[in-house]
Amino acid sequence: MAGNSRDPGRSVTARALSVLTAFDVEHTRLTLTAIARRAAIPLATAHRLVRELEMWGALTRDGDGRYAIGLRLWEIGLLAPVNSSLREVALPFLQDLCASTHDNVHLAVRDELAAVYVEKLSTPRAVPILSRTGGRLPLHATGVGKVLLAHAPASVVQECCERGLARRTPYTITEPGRLNQELHAVRTRGFARANEEMTLGNCSVAVPVLDATGEVIAALGIVAHSVRADVAKLVKPLFPAAEGIRQRLLEHERAGHDAVSR
Amino acid sequence: MAGNSRDPGRSVTARALSVLTAFDVEHTRLTLTAIARRAAIPLATAHRLVRELEMWGALTRDGDGRYAIGLRLWEIGLLAPVNSSLREVALPFLQDLCASTHDNVHLAVRDELAAVYVEKLSTPRAVPILSRTGGRLPLHATGVGKVLLAHAPASVVQECCERGLARRTPYTITEPGRLNQELHAVRTRGFARANEEMTLGNCSVAVPVLDATGEVIAALGIVAHSVRADVAKLVKPLFPAAEGIRQRLLEHERAGHDAVSR
Repeated sequence: MAGNSRDPGRSVTARALSVLTAFDVEHTRLTLTAIARRAAIPLATAHRLVRELEMWGALTRDGDGRYAIGLRLWEIGLLAPVNSSLREVALPFLQDLCASTHDNVHLAVRDELAAVYVEKLSTPRAVPILSRTGGRLPLHATGVGKVLLAHAPASVVQECCERGLARRTPYTITEPGRLNQELHAVRTRGFARANEEMTLGNCSVAVPVLDATGEVIAALGIVAHSVRADVAKLVKPLFPAAEGIRQRLLEHERAGHDAVSR
Repeated sequence: MAGNSRDPGRSVTARALSVLTAFDVEHTRLTLTAIARRAAIPLATAHRLVRELEMWGALTRDGDGRYAIGLRLWEIGLLAPVNSSLREVALPFLQDLCASTHDNVHLAVRDELAAVYVEKLSTPRAVPILSRTGGRLPLHATGVGKVLLAHAPASVVQECCERGLARRTPYTITEPGRLNQELHAVRTRGFARANEEMTLGNCSVAVPVLDATGEVIAALGIVAHSVRADVAKLVKPLFPAAEGIRQRLLEHERAGHDAVSR
């Protein structure tokens, strides 16, 4: 996909996309020079591509001359089934959970070897956490991640272990044998817990969200202070909420909308 | 930007973007043939572009062979300041409003001649409404729209009137003179109301959300049943919420994050 590719079409599309990937959560506003550097393309090429992307609305330029992701790309991104089907249906259940528990509430799906946070609701009383809507966290160290991993094909678990189970805290499970035992327990018990395995002081519990065919398509979780954490009490409201989401997804699909499968 | 453009780079990027615009809220899953037709590009070109976009994660293909917007494009779209700054900061205030009023709560910004809904929270008790997160509605017929229009440059109001004020219900304001009076009242009163002007039976109120410089950057609104609507009571909780958002935006910016301006 380099500039000297013999397939100029492919090359141009790839370079236009590389302009977009210059942006991330730590870099939401970039100068043209920074875009060119981060996308590894010549400044003149960056200038031309950025101008086209700006005209279309994929990028926007602020008063300082820096670029950010544009409103139109945000609008089109929201058409992804993970938002337009899953999040829209689940949101009222997340709001209820957040209002009744005052804790952080998460809805996550698996993408390859990461848990992707489809929505995160929080309150001023909730503990500070690392997740954000649209963010990614490792599968082996969080409640929602463990649910998603416990219901993933064995090859995914194997790949996670082969890549190495990064130690986030002294309590993170880093041995493949222990992780497999833990995932077995998650399936047997029907929920996952992670105790200070991602962030010291925090505890999370999570349950699977099923689709019409009984497949696990998402995980619903709560993160609380580990000192206040009564696991049985924390996990209790998650089961009816996950069941409510499943039923609404079914109605949503019957009403002619699309299934959530990605 | 046609296929025979003398600037092949521009043409290819434009065509790749046209593939994305084939998707909208009524068309979240499309076959390759439908994409080619809706993007007005040859099937072979569509095939090549779709494959590239799929490889990158801008599109995803389901079991039926239909394409949808991919997870990666959704993730990048969320980096738009309207989400990463404005929505993230405002969300807890919207949750509180929704939990206390049980009505539909909206946060919207203006893009050209439309109100774009940055977030919509709802509850089972709320009235059914047309808005959705990422959706657009006309400025002259909704509470949030009137706030945004009342604080827009005069040229925007003029353009709205010249384009024609579409009648959505018998109560929609369709005469420019009446609209200008109404917008003056919105500025004087400090809030907007729309009574069955967008949807029969529904009433909305909205207030401006200011940034650090005192500029109106968004509108915060509530939609309720018009029969239950006590305007003074409906609008009351919006003022402290809008002020709370303004203060949090200021803190957010001071903490080194970016301003919300688009």
